[in-house]
Amino acid sequence: MTSVTATAYAAPAPKAPLERTTIERRDLREHDVLIDIAYAGICHSDIHQAREEWGRGSFPMVPGHEIAGVVSEVGPGVTKYAVGDRVGVGCFVDSCRECEQCQAGLEQYCQVGGMTGTYNDTDRQGEKTYGGYSTHIVVDENYVLRIPEGLSLDVAAPLLCAGITLYSPLAHWNAGPGKKVAILGVGGLGHMGIRIAHAMGAEVTALSQSLRKKEDALRLGADHYYATSDPETFSALAGSFDLIVNTVSAVLDLDAYLSLLKVDGSMVVVGAPENASSLNLFSLIGARRSLSGSSIGGIRETQEMLDFCAEHGFGAEIEVINADRINEAYERVMASDVRYRFVIDIASLRD
Amino acid sequence: MTSVTATAYAAPAPKAPLERTTIERRDLREHDVLIDIAYAGICHSDIHQAREEWGRGSFPMVPGHEIAGVVSEVGPGVTKYAVGDRVGVGCFVDSCRECEQCQAGLEQYCQVGGMTGTYNDTDRQGEKTYGGYSTHIVVDENYVLRIPEGLSLDVAAPLLCAGITLYSPLAHWNAGPGKKVAILGVGGLGHMGIRIAHAMGAEVTALSQSLRKKEDALRLGADHYYATSDPETFSALAGSFDLIVNTVSAVLDLDAYLSLLKVDGSMVVVGAPENASSLNLFSLIGARRSLSGSSIGGIRETQEMLDFCAEHGFGAEIEVINADRINEAYERVMASDVRYRFVIDIASLRD
Repeated sequence: MTSVTATAYAAPAPKAPLERTTIERRDLREHDVLIDIAYAGICHSDIHQAREEWGRGSFPMVPGHEIAGVVSEVGPGVTKYAVGDRVGVGCFVDSCRECEQCQAGLEQYCQVGGMTGTYNDTDRQGEKTYGGYSTHIVVDENYVLRIPEGLSLDVAAPLLCAGITLYSPLAHWNAGPGKKVAILGVGGLGHMGIRIAHAMGAEVTALSQSLRKKEDALRLGADHYYATSDPETFSALAGSFDLIVNTVSAVLDLDAYLSLLKVDGSMVVVGAPENASSLNLFSLIGARRSLSGSSIGGIRETQEMLDFCAEHGFGAEIEVINADRINEAYERVMASDVRYRFVIDIASLRD
Repeated sequence: MTSVTATAYAAPAPKAPLERTTIERRDLREHDVLIDIAYAGICHSDIHQAREEWGRGSFPMVPGHEIAGVVSEVGPGVTKYAVGDRVGVGCFVDSCRECEQCQAGLEQYCQVGGMTGTYNDTDRQGEKTYGGYSTHIVVDENYVLRIPEGLSLDVAAPLLCAGITLYSPLAHWNAGPGKKVAILGVGGLGHMGIRIAHAMGAEVTALSQSLRKKEDALRLGADHYYATSDPETFSALAGSFDLIVNTVSAVLDLDAYLSLLKVDGSMVVVGAPENASSLNLFSLIGARRSLSGSSIGGIRETQEMLDFCAEHGFGAEIEVINADRINEAYERVMASDVRYRFVIDIASLRD
């Protein structure tokens, strides 16, 4: 029940480069576990927040919500985890626990104060939260996930955000045998979508701007691949899909993509641009189509996703970097120059 | 098996006033029925099409797809109807009959050439179609509905478009006991939505621009009524509804209306503006909401709707007019000055 001084990488101010620093992790409370972090993924949203592109941030900011590590100490009331357990932490570390959504295992949609973000947030005790670019983190056991045997911690880390962000809509909208599913965008999110949809048994089409990632996408499990820069793609695929999961957080021609859906098909958006999109409602009316949104997943479903990935023998495709390359990695993420997720080796913070 | 010269009201050219004329109805084919039309509703889309606001029209145009009448002759292969039967015709008079959608009873979404519109269309034999502002119509029996006993032909006519346009999404998105449903817009479509959603057992909220129609809406079955011109409506109702059916064919602040949905709620659009709408995708992502569209309903479901309305003892609220007042009625529809549907007494065309 000691508090811990953690070494971390933090953005001292909006848009400033991240730099090495130290932060204090709280004393363990009744149900807390202390986690020695082994790996932390770099999510596009880390950059949005560190650069204040999604509204005001709280600085210094330690990003990171794709966390994998090992339990090194437990509070007196902890029953779910023991020292030595391999665990993960995703996008949130608390929620109200009592509203209809929390009760239903949809903590990400908590209606009473919202979920408590793993970083760049203030928790329910009024303390600032700091994320996974850090040697240690203290989290309530109810918001900790178990990383199954057979899944390495490095490739597991990105599952905590990228994995569940795709798994949840694919499961909710019934991707599976007999279903034609398109994954729009082959990046950190999209490459997980291809793997998961394929493992669920769906017929998977990867849609990416150019043909550049075709070989990768087919290797990851796509049955088909089309370049969206080619206008013929839209005539060839008109009315084809039961489900499109859109991972591209840029303003797109939604009407063009909706035209690729069958009657009763759904396009689910998991990454959104800051700016409003334009939509002709006839794109929906003419074939009872839906445009929907989905945000990560709840704790129960995140565990289900980890177990699913372990069972199917895959994690994320990653490039492991030392912490002193985080700023460079941010630039490469912005340039889409990563296949497909940077993961920080937190051992490099322990030197 | 005689052909019939019908008296009709037609728009001779785009935006021109409608005038009395005659048209020829085809000889009865094997499965055709000849219907003596008694009443025809005036739908907002009649005006859009007669005025070429939805793209090029085919003139002269006889509008009308809310048709109620009596069978006066049948083709030799007809088995479903007999002379004297009370029947209706809605928005379409044919479809391919073979595609997945037609086989599933969703002829309105026919994937092979689309449904054949009751008017302003060319049928599968290459003949121009003319609608219900007319003394007679000839329609294949498979695209004719039975109007149940107990439902007068005048109040039944608008059910063939306005009724099914609301019934279908309310049924598909499971309006019923325990569900909170909002009907946005209290007009020709919306007033049917209130009645049907109430009869299905949902808790119904009517949303209309002003308080002007409050008394009517409550009488029609709404449990609650709010004016959308009052900004407090949006804070009072935030996160309230399982389902919003949007009947307003104008550009709206979709984000504001989506914020009224619960987690997993749907807003279904049944009337759409010509112009594109603006949408912030975060309105969907933050609570797994959906924005969907729905178009009328198939033949089987339209019959189900007519039977449902008869069982619950209601049709549309109408104002019956003689045919020589159609042009005046169009102006009043444009000014929202009708409670809630004009129905043409086709007897006035027989003088």
